[in-house]
Amino acid sequence: MVNIERLWDKIHELALIGQTEDNGVTRFSYTKDEHEANELVKQYMEQAGLEVSYDAIGNLIGSTPGKEDLPAILLGSHIDTVPNGGKFDGSLGVLTAIEVMQSLQEQQIRLKHPVKVIAFKDEEGARFGFGLLGSRAVAGRLKDEDLDKKDAKGISIREALINQGYDPEKIETAKMDHVKAYIELHIEQGKVLENQEVPVGNVTGIAGPLWLKVKLEGEAEHAGATPMGQRKDPLVAASLVIAEIEKLASQYPYAVATVGSLSLTPGGINVIPGSVEFTVDIRDISEEIRDQLEKEITDFSIQIGNEREIKVTIEELQRVAPVLCSEDIQSLIMESISELNIPVISLPSGAGHDAMQFNRLFPVGMIFVRSKDGISHNPKEFTSKEDVKAGAETMLKTLIKLDEL
Amino acid sequence: MVNIERLWDKIHELALIGQTEDNGVTRFSYTKDEHEANELVKQYMEQAGLEVSYDAIGNLIGSTPGKEDLPAILLGSHIDTVPNGGKFDGSLGVLTAIEVMQSLQEQQIRLKHPVKVIAFKDEEGARFGFGLLGSRAVAGRLKDEDLDKKDAKGISIREALINQGYDPEKIETAKMDHVKAYIELHIEQGKVLENQEVPVGNVTGIAGPLWLKVKLEGEAEHAGATPMGQRKDPLVAASLVIAEIEKLASQYPYAVATVGSLSLTPGGINVIPGSVEFTVDIRDISEEIRDQLEKEITDFSIQIGNEREIKVTIEELQRVAPVLCSEDIQSLIMESISELNIPVISLPSGAGHDAMQFNRLFPVGMIFVRSKDGISHNPKEFTSKEDVKAGAETMLKTLIKLDEL
Repeated sequence: MVNIERLWDKIHELALIGQTEDNGVTRFSYTKDEHEANELVKQYMEQAGLEVSYDAIGNLIGSTPGKEDLPAILLGSHIDTVPNGGKFDGSLGVLTAIEVMQSLQEQQIRLKHPVKVIAFKDEEGARFGFGLLGSRAVAGRLKDEDLDKKDAKGISIREALINQGYDPEKIETAKMDHVKAYIELHIEQGKVLENQEVPVGNVTGIAGPLWLKVKLEGEAEHAGATPMGQRKDPLVAASLVIAEIEKLASQYPYAVATVGSLSLTPGGINVIPGSVEFTVDIRDISEEIRDQLEKEITDFSIQIGNEREIKVTIEELQRVAPVLCSEDIQSLIMESISELNIPVISLPSGAGHDAMQFNRLFPVGMIFVRSKDGISHNPKEFTSKEDVKAGAETMLKTLIKLDEL
Repeated sequence: MVNIERLWDKIHELALIGQTEDNGVTRFSYTKDEHEANELVKQYMEQAGLEVSYDAIGNLIGSTPGKEDLPAILLGSHIDTVPNGGKFDGSLGVLTAIEVMQSLQEQQIRLKHPVKVIAFKDEEGARFGFGLLGSRAVAGRLKDEDLDKKDAKGISIREALINQGYDPEKIETAKMDHVKAYIELHIEQGKVLENQEVPVGNVTGIAGPLWLKVKLEGEAEHAGATPMGQRKDPLVAASLVIAEIEKLASQYPYAVATVGSLSLTPGGINVIPGSVEFTVDIRDISEEIRDQLEKEITDFSIQIGNEREIKVTIEELQRVAPVLCSEDIQSLIMESISELNIPVISLPSGAGHDAMQFNRLFPVGMIFVRSKDGISHNPKEFTSKEDVKAGAETMLKTLIKLDEL
């Protein structure tokens, strides 16, 4: 059993650092607030009996040795936030992992595997527009040139590291080998669990986003003087594509595809648009399904373009590989949820997480807790104490089972 | 027969006043350039044997008495332009009417009806955002409060009138009674005649624009974390409506409906839009058909809103009554075109014209001449000399026939 009161108090104590006017939290990487938050979490880790250190990129790591000489189990999440974010996104995963370790210590349960609790550096990317900085370093996937990325004031990651006493030459030392698995608990940031009325769920995978920019070019003409049959209207073409995108994505159980931004020119009420640009965000935990959906969307766009004499240009803005969660770890999580007498729900993660960086390196598992109204990245972000408890108990049970595997 | 060389020269001479860097024309109402242009046209009118005066709003009117005491036939268009407009829009109609009168004079043909050639004040509305100023005054439809409309520098129409020596108290005197009919020649501003490969066409009516603003409100949510079946995406709803608008308008032979502007919020690539706003410009020369189409569009929008739990709000921005051209005058125009051995094409005017103001006052007729690539309101606006000749001959023949009616 975890101590839910202790965990709940820590969530609220940590949220005071970087607190905003409307009760949100702003903690950007390598800032005074974020450092202060790390130092507080360091105390929590020490109270949980962990041996604490910062690695070369600034990840905060609390370790405990195992009874046997085995690869380490990693537990973690992040404590940086978006501007005016919430109290739960990231922080909940770190604090829950610490609470789990503290509970084990109090119950004098010593695991066979070493465990490392990690507060990953800069998951959100709010400062440098990059993100997943700490997990990239742990995965050995952070490149030296990545450190040249700059914040709004022109300060690079490299300079930020030096300013806080780190040596950018040593980032390679942050890479972790001998890892058994990584487990992360996180708020859902959606409403699937809420709609299913369950506090906690098993994550099947993390749907890496594929971002496309679609440009449609037709002919801007007088809205009154151009008969319907003589038009090359790229907005009507775009509309047919956008409506079809919904249909195409809905064919697959977990795929999502979203047109979130759209602009057109010239934009006069009495002028047929000359060109339209929109983005498509396509996600699935299966790369194969995502790529299939991408092909269906681009094929349909090109077909509409051909039918309507509209020039279609499709540009790839971003392509992040999705990650499937380990079947073994998923089984342990589902078993643990079931033991808590909670209906077992499995769902994909549409949002990105540090776990994505560990794709093809070691198995990962994720536990989602219910997030009120699906709100995240906002001061209104909320998960109830009862739901936090269910999440923490699930993590504790899963960890003990994983240790036996 | 008209003197096409003389008419062609005048088109180019007039275009020098207010000429822009890239060979376009800018002539806003009540400015030095526009006054200078009026004074040149006044000379042309005098050369054509017309008696010239300005009315209380500043319309330039060249009159010739009839052999009999009959109501007047009005011929006209405008010589103001949009910013960096072309040489033909408006000016061609005024100069053609003058050329027709000069040709009649030279051929010693005196008509039974008095004729007034009018260069209407401020058709475009480029200065005060209002437009059709002169024709409103002639129709007796210009209201005193309309004179309070201001230009970009804060100068009102009233002040502009006073600055040029007019008395705003007297605008009612510009109203014309005892009118037999109004005939206007204008460039098409579309590509119907070009596609039909004819230089000139008969206008069936002027499609008054009806402008709607449609607002769709759904729920802005995370593009990755919200399954397809749980979305309230107003952009997908808008897309279904926009695609349907094309279908609905295409049911009618002359109706057009255009979504020319669209904006959405918040506009993030990875966020499902929360709300979408777009405009619809609906036109037909039949008010009944236009209103039927409007109803079909609003009904469909509301239906989609209901099906998708999207809040739909529809606001009317503008509703201008369409005008049907007189069947009698249309017959004369078609006969005249036919006599020139040109295939007779009839088409609606999607763009607005001074003739709209004369709805329900007296019969109107309009002759369109072919406009290269349908371009207007642009320095590239062009109508060939041959097409201008066909238009002028059509007007001459129509006028003679109308005089006999």
